[in-house]
Amino acid sequence: MSSSHLLPFASDYMEGAHPAILKRLAETNRTPMPGYGTDAISEAARAKIRAACQCPDADVYFLVGGTQTNATVIDALLASYQGVVAADTGHISLHEAGAIEFGGHKVLTLPHHSGKLRPEEVNAYLTAFEADGNRDHMVMPGMVYISHPTEYGTLYTAAELRRLHEICQAHKIPLFLDGARLAYALACPENEVSLPLIAACCDAFYIGGTKCGTLFGEAVVFPQKDRAPHFFTIMKQHGALLAKGWLLGLQFDTLFTDGLYEHLGRPAIQAADTIRNALQQYGYHLFFKTPTNQIFVIMPNEQLDRLAKEVSYSFWEAYDAEHTVIRLATSWATTPEETQQLLAVLAETAR
Amino acid sequence: MSSSHLLPFASDYMEGAHPAILKRLAETNRTPMPGYGTDAISEAARAKIRAACQCPDADVYFLVGGTQTNATVIDALLASYQGVVAADTGHISLHEAGAIEFGGHKVLTLPHHSGKLRPEEVNAYLTAFEADGNRDHMVMPGMVYISHPTEYGTLYTAAELRRLHEICQAHKIPLFLDGARLAYALACPENEVSLPLIAACCDAFYIGGTKCGTLFGEAVVFPQKDRAPHFFTIMKQHGALLAKGWLLGLQFDTLFTDGLYEHLGRPAIQAADTIRNALQQYGYHLFFKTPTNQIFVIMPNEQLDRLAKEVSYSFWEAYDAEHTVIRLATSWATTPEETQQLLAVLAETAR
Amino acid sequence: MSSSHLLPFASDYMEGAHPAILKRLAETNRTPMPGYGTDAISEAARAKIRAACQCPDADVYFLVGGTQTNATVIDALLASYQGVVAADTGHISLHEAGAIEFGGHKVLTLPHHSGKLRPEEVNAYLTAFEADGNRDHMVMPGMVYISHPTEYGTLYTAAELRRLHEICQAHKIPLFLDGARLAYALACPENEVSLPLIAACCDAFYIGGTKCGTLFGEAVVFPQKDRAPHFFTIMKQHGALLAKGWLLGLQFDTLFTDGLYEHLGRPAIQAADTIRNALQQYGYHLFFKTPTNQIFVIMPNEQLDRLAKEVSYSFWEAYDAEHTVIRLATSWATTPEETQQLLAVLAETAR
Amino acid sequence: MSSSHLLPFASDYMEGAHPAILKRLAETNRTPMPGYGTDAISEAARAKIRAACQCPDADVYFLVGGTQTNATVIDALLASYQGVVAADTGHISLHEAGAIEFGGHKVLTLPHHSGKLRPEEVNAYLTAFEADGNRDHMVMPGMVYISHPTEYGTLYTAAELRRLHEICQAHKIPLFLDGARLAYALACPENEVSLPLIAACCDAFYIGGTKCGTLFGEAVVFPQKDRAPHFFTIMKQHGALLAKGWLLGLQFDTLFTDGLYEHLGRPAIQAADTIRNALQQYGYHLFFKTPTNQIFVIMPNEQLDRLAKEVSYSFWEAYDAEHTVIRLATSWATTPEETQQLLAVLAETAR
Repeated sequence: MSSSHLLPFASDYMEGAHPAILKRLAETNRTPMPGYGTDAISEAARAKIRAACQCPDADVYFLVGGTQTNATVIDALLASYQGVVAADTGHISLHEAGAIEFGGHKVLTLPHHSGKLRPEEVNAYLTAFEADGNRDHMVMPGMVYISHPTEYGTLYTAAELRRLHEICQAHKIPLFLDGARLAYALACPENEVSLPLIAACCDAFYIGGTKCGTLFGEAVVFPQKDRAPHFFTIMKQHGALLAKGWLLGLQFDTLFTDGLYEHLGRPAIQAADTIRNALQQYGYHLFFKTPTNQIFVIMPNEQLDRLAKEVSYSFWEAYDAEHTVIRLATSWATTPEETQQLLAVLAETAR
Repeated sequence: MSSSHLLPFASDYMEGAHPAILKRLAETNRTPMPGYGTDAISEAARAKIRAACQCPDADVYFLVGGTQTNATVIDALLASYQGVVAADTGHISLHEAGAIEFGGHKVLTLPHHSGKLRPEEVNAYLTAFEADGNRDHMVMPGMVYISHPTEYGTLYTAAELRRLHEICQAHKIPLFLDGARLAYALACPENEVSLPLIAACCDAFYIGGTKCGTLFGEAVVFPQKDRAPHFFTIMKQHGALLAKGWLLGLQFDTLFTDGLYEHLGRPAIQAADTIRNALQQYGYHLFFKTPTNQIFVIMPNEQLDRLAKEVSYSFWEAYDAEHTVIRLATSWATTPEETQQLLAVLAETAR
Repeated sequence: MSSSHLLPFASDYMEGAHPAILKRLAETNRTPMPGYGTDAISEAARAKIRAACQCPDADVYFLVGGTQTNATVIDALLASYQGVVAADTGHISLHEAGAIEFGGHKVLTLPHHSGKLRPEEVNAYLTAFEADGNRDHMVMPGMVYISHPTEYGTLYTAAELRRLHEICQAHKIPLFLDGARLAYALACPENEVSLPLIAACCDAFYIGGTKCGTLFGEAVVFPQKDRAPHFFTIMKQHGALLAKGWLLGLQFDTLFTDGLYEHLGRPAIQAADTIRNALQQYGYHLFFKTPTNQIFVIMPNEQLDRLAKEVSYSFWEAYDAEHTVIRLATSWATTPEETQQLLAVLAETAR
Repeated sequence: MSSSHLLPFASDYMEGAHPAILKRLAETNRTPMPGYGTDAISEAARAKIRAACQCPDADVYFLVGGTQTNATVIDALLASYQGVVAADTGHISLHEAGAIEFGGHKVLTLPHHSGKLRPEEVNAYLTAFEADGNRDHMVMPGMVYISHPTEYGTLYTAAELRRLHEICQAHKIPLFLDGARLAYALACPENEVSLPLIAACCDAFYIGGTKCGTLFGEAVVFPQKDRAPHFFTIMKQHGALLAKGWLLGLQFDTLFTDGLYEHLGRPAIQAADTIRNALQQYGYHLFFKTPTNQIFVIMPNEQLDRLAKEVSYSFWEAYDAEHTVIRLATSWATTPEETQQLLAVLAETAR
């Protein structure tokens, strides 16, 4: 399956790494390093992440990919008899091939609202569980999982995140934020949720690299020291401990130098805004109104056939017999030329 | 923990990638690719591996690291009530933090002989199990795991591998070979076990990249098509499916171009031979006589303290109150200069 | 928590065993038997169950309780990457404390309709999964689980069961029926689903004992021989293999002698019908109209407080701020006197 | 497989229950009870066990069988990355079909000495683990499992148990004692280990019922309150929560009334001593010298063929080409007549 002649809007992980990362990989390629993230570059990266998140005592670990990170963190924080609360559209609910259940834990789903959990619905669920006379025969909710941006590219407000934190505190369970696309939230004018706010509200979160400028890699942050004892061993047990751990440290050290991570996503947001405006102007209907780098469009199937000849996109779901929801994603690597070419195709297809 | 001033002999994964790999990474960095190994470069790499192994119908998958690969393959091939037979020194037995048990399977250990399983002991064990009146209350051996080279750097003979194959066939269970350091076997004059022989004898094996010239990555080969149904999903479930799968394909495509994989390990073997000869000449005792890139030496603790100031090595185990077994490892990246410097330190320390 | 002075309508497992079972337990108490169900009485019970189900080649196993049986059968029939489709109200979905996830499998829920799965919704779900471009990143539905009667005491029609069978066959996955309360279906005039029909339509099912006249025990039937290889070992692995297996065989041998199992539930159904009629006559509202031994009533909370002083019932769920749904259950052990006393209390409470 | 004409020495679970238990089962059969062990009889049994063990704050739970109990307790006490230390002959090591691994945990075996762990070897192992530079890549020992009597019928001394306790305390891990055959220890003159001593030295233990006078059932004791939070839910998750929990409570209430449990095993010990003496007198060789109710004899195969026609025994292991180790077990139900008949057969066979 080659897509080299198609315009690359299928996902935000279609290209390699930010040039600054490749440059450092080349520079350090023959420098001997100790393994498993015990090297000095990884340590420097951790220090920079702690600073950016304003949590000086945080434990920071580097893993390879998103599903792996979710499964490892969730297994580390849950007791054996607990499950994780998530939106029914959450990545862990639907698109991780049962990685959470493989670790023995149930995903306890609540209905999503444009991809988000509603804090008061979480509170009601946790409260009802505690009052349920049958609760000892049920899976105890042991943490809350959210993603920011969500699967649908939507954003939690600062008030929502603070309220989720309060609720989790009140029910004595951790809050975990999946930031696979966090750079695109941070680059978004509508975003109210900064790294320090996330660190203040969450017991664990990860800063996405794979979709945000690295070749691969996700940085897990536990703002409170020793929140997840023996996490190194848990990583190993999950096959999530990279031998050449400095490759991860180096990439995050680069992203957290000179604030790169916080502005890396801007071209993606600008491109996505341009595309959203054009789509509406050309008469297409958006499936969701989202402010980040993912665009969900309802396409007539006939037009989709023509689009498919020139654009690489993601199938999302069937809308009705004659329409399909597709996803177009921009990324840190999207160029103005690609965007303009896409607009031209969309304009042509819309006729 | 920085080791930049020390001579790098602690492991064979202390440096980055073969220069040819870095070059291709740079060249393809901005070429859009589809994800998860569905790209054309990964397909080309699979074709080259099939050719090198002379198994044209093989299924080939690329994973990130060794523990992850062992756990994913073993979980894919075992029934829920089966365990895996391994040497008591096997990587899965000792140094994978329980990754196999995390998947629900017992590691059934047999005594090692210089790191190897003895075929007739495997046969006796499987035969005894089948005859045991209590077998239905026990974990059924469902596959045999070996590594080549072994944890101790030793090599199976062609006759041993063929015999293990026969035994597994007779007992109707698969044979799985962990080739994390396979390039160092292939580069070794004593080695009798070629890629085609491995493919002919094993139901599954992996060709190591992380320790053999890539940044990361292991190539799993199932010589018979469809031997592990839904392996892609099983990888996802294990957090072992790399989003930017072409990074793995590209690295293995490079290693399997112009026979690079089969001669990449030669400098390591030459360096190791030189070091082994020098060690014996200087009066040190080898813990194991091994032909590959790992050297196990019994060091007086006092000398070790001096060595540690100049050489990065691996602690292996305590030998007695006054001696320690250490491992020195060479790699594809070891230079003649490094080897000569090591010899000088060893000569000095031996005095 | 003693309930000895309350009328026993909280569940259908509040009393011991049918007197014929206790009698045989006493008679055989000092007869030495081989363990683990390898005894002659267990073999006789298996033969009687095969005859009653008209499946002469069936494999029959005896386990101790319902959750244990569901988990063991589901783990035996699913591949590691598969999940089980169930109604969102199914026992495995809600009230088994995550026993299915403990075995590594996801419960894939569909909306219930009075406790039942709709066959066409199952078909649509399985068909959509197979067409989903992301299916390899998702949990594959690997079997369908239903219960008869359902959690809400409702019954599948013969046509529905046949259609579920057809659908599962078409999608090449097994159908599993949880018959924890099967005796109450068989005793019910509305029931169209006989033991032979179940055996013809299902790949696995269990005949409930715990709620249907035994001290404990469930009989698992695989109508096709060798459908679940090594099930004995899987039972042991799940802690589900009773040492004194003949205790289970003896109980089922008794239930399947002279058709006891098929008429044992009649008094429960008659009592339940009497209670349902009285409830409606007294002005109570039923939450569900069900034909079997469970009665779901919406009670004003004030009346419930009074009821609680004389009747042992089950809390089901809050209905609204002023009403609660409760369950009253009759059983094989319910006496006409108990039923009349309950009616008197209900009449009094309704005033 | 019928053994009704054979003398019953194959195991200690070949007969039903102590008559006092059957009597109470009959008496309470129609008394309604609340489920899951929340009844008054279970509560009374717990109080009696606490008194007998002199641990007034203990949490006591009733489970159905030994493998189930081991798996549930071990899963409850271990963190996800920990394993359990056991003798290589331990029941959990060999004869539970991988139930511990099914829960995700490795059994870390040490060599047995007549079935026992040596305290100093446990200490050395735990100490070495903590000093091992690779420990973060290994399974951390998270508890120690022993059985008393052991698989070979041997007994720990009071000093050994106290020392194991000290060692576990020093290494901050729990000690768990499997008392499946505890009544036979308590009835043995050589035994130094009382229930209060066990409660003082162990973090968890279970008092065996299945092999010691009940139809089924094991009583788990956690001497310190809340040592295993949510154990009720963990039992449910493991399929180990009996619906009619009072059946377990009633049996243990009977065993702990008037000290029955502590003298119930005496006839078994007397019979075993008689048999051991006779065996030696007739020229047989004991495989192990054990003081409890299990007798391990090395039998010439030819004599074994004759024995098999009249005695039901257990195959243990092949000794050499011409001899087999068998186990003869006595129980609370063994009669003097059966013992005398066995002696006659043994005398005859020995000729």
